[in-house]
Amino acid sequence: MTQRITEAAVRAHLDAQARPPGSLGRIEDLAVRLAVVQQTMKPQAEAVSLLVFAGDHGLTQDRVSAYPSEVTQAMVATLLAGRASANAFARAIGAEVRIIDAGVDADLAPHPLLVDAKVARGTRNAAREPAMSTQDVELAIARGSEQAIAALDRGADLLVLGEMGIGNSASAALVMHRLAPAPLLDCIGVGTGHDNAGLAHKRAVLTRASQRSDATEPLEVLRQFGGLEIAMMAGAVLGALDRRALVVIDGFICTAAALAAIRMRPEAREVCLFAHRSAEAGHDQMLKAMQAEPLLDLGLRLGEGTGGLLAVPLIRAAAALLSDVASLDDVLAGRV
Amino acid sequence: MTQRITEAAVRAHLDAQARPPGSLGRIEDLAVRLAVVQQTMKPQAEAVSLLVFAGDHGLTQDRVSAYPSEVTQAMVATLLAGRASANAFARAIGAEVRIIDAGVDADLAPHPLLVDAKVARGTRNAAREPAMSTQDVELAIARGSEQAIAALDRGADLLVLGEMGIGNSASAALVMHRLAPAPLLDCIGVGTGHDNAGLAHKRAVLTRASQRSDATEPLEVLRQFGGLEIAMMAGAVLGALDRRALVVIDGFICTAAALAAIRMRPEAREVCLFAHRSAEAGHDQMLKAMQAEPLLDLGLRLGEGTGGLLAVPLIRAAAALLSDVASLDDVLAGRV
Repeated sequence: MTQRITEAAVRAHLDAQARPPGSLGRIEDLAVRLAVVQQTMKPQAEAVSLLVFAGDHGLTQDRVSAYPSEVTQAMVATLLAGRASANAFARAIGAEVRIIDAGVDADLAPHPLLVDAKVARGTRNAAREPAMSTQDVELAIARGSEQAIAALDRGADLLVLGEMGIGNSASAALVMHRLAPAPLLDCIGVGTGHDNAGLAHKRAVLTRASQRSDATEPLEVLRQFGGLEIAMMAGAVLGALDRRALVVIDGFICTAAALAAIRMRPEAREVCLFAHRSAEAGHDQMLKAMQAEPLLDLGLRLGEGTGGLLAVPLIRAAAALLSDVASLDDVLAGRV
Repeated sequence: MTQRITEAAVRAHLDAQARPPGSLGRIEDLAVRLAVVQQTMKPQAEAVSLLVFAGDHGLTQDRVSAYPSEVTQAMVATLLAGRASANAFARAIGAEVRIIDAGVDADLAPHPLLVDAKVARGTRNAAREPAMSTQDVELAIARGSEQAIAALDRGADLLVLGEMGIGNSASAALVMHRLAPAPLLDCIGVGTGHDNAGLAHKRAVLTRASQRSDATEPLEVLRQFGGLEIAMMAGAVLGALDRRALVVIDGFICTAAALAAIRMRPEAREVCLFAHRSAEAGHDQMLKAMQAEPLLDLGLRLGEGTGGLLAVPLIRAAAALLSDVASLDDVLAGRV
């Protein structure tokens, strides 16, 4: 019979260590979280897998992004070449990288780091019709779960989710609107970078999209408004939950995917670690809708998993606390 | 003739990379800072040296701390044994550790990681008389500078300062009071952990100490109120400045030392990177007195350099950004 590792047990162990109780603040909270999720007093966080899910969005036909849809494919190539910002961070932190084609609107050449999980060549234009079929949303979720489990089977101790998809802050805004829930205009930000006119246009297009369906059930919200990469990341969260692995959630788009997963299975909240507060408008409110206080606040708004990667060393430090710190009793008795 | 690396040049390089300009927020600011301090477009942050300065405080005779002075020596032994919280973080992050005896009130046995830089066996009781002589404060600063330069000569790319010294939040409060400057009561917190009565007593003792001298000149403030480890950390900041190395500043006590260094030589501000906002009352106000916005806000209040170490991976990520990220032009032209 396996002994259950409780929050109280981990907290008691930390409190007995040689420092004023609670003096490592949120790092101690992280240690507790990691130990409880992994169900061990010696949790691991060394092997990290960054999974970047890529997809295109029919919404870009209505110019919801400052960049054209083709940039998704170009950035996937950059990620595969190891020359995107996320690659630089992954090298600095020591994480493997996989790019998962959830729905890029192009035929991508095979590459050792590319996983072909394509459900469709982009979504349909959610401003005019449902973004995808029920079958496609279910397939995307199932493949996301498989990818999370595959990464854990490769030996990952924890997962970092990232995304690349021109137009996906528009899709994520609609998902947040229905699932946080929150007023639509609170959910819409500048994304990769709109001027005032671009932002006003994005608001108009998304208002039109939202009027098309009154869905509030998570699968239906994803079908109506979701991106394939967003649905697949939601699936990855559920895969992590099934394996009791911590999954690090990056910025606005990733958080919308985590929100969908949590609305499907509330217990998924426990395995989601929200890495940072993005500069994208709406992110803070979406985090609050899940009672999530992120670890970092660095003005990031890139995506690709960059912010998630930056939280990894904090998790490793938390794991290290549990591994080899003396107790105060031992210190005061001269037994170190 | 060496070309001068300007902030504008680094910013222009980052802005041309394949992401929306500014979308990595404070990590981009960090990259700029690191490149300008090191005067290279390929700054390094891999080799890190944690220097923990230890000293005892005569103020503990008046019970300004919840812990007895002997804990300083016990925690130095724990740090040398590699079993303190800072050791766990240093291993997780990959940093060398040196413990520098600035003024521990005990004869410490030699150890490979211990540097004997002892100026005196603790300070005098600053509530009743100057904490040290002019000669001692100058010696402490000189030795701190030497230790910083020695760590850089061993190959460190950047330094993290930490401290261990029962009573040193009381000493640091007096330093902050005079050098920030700020009302004394704003500078006094619970340190390692006071109850209300303990905090009231600490306030009374420090009020008495502050009435003894009206010093506002940094060397004289350190002489009247400083700890030997605080003066030595101030010297370490000045040593880093002389070598144009970035020095990561931990929490309340470390920040008081950096404040003293900056009041001595304002240009030292540029090489100080303030790692986190401590939970110790007064830290936020002291940071604001130097227009410093720390990187992290994790409710830490331990010291030992723990918070400084947690900022290191962010600095490494910033360095990595400059090393190998494609330009947007190359991405759009398919040249990755």
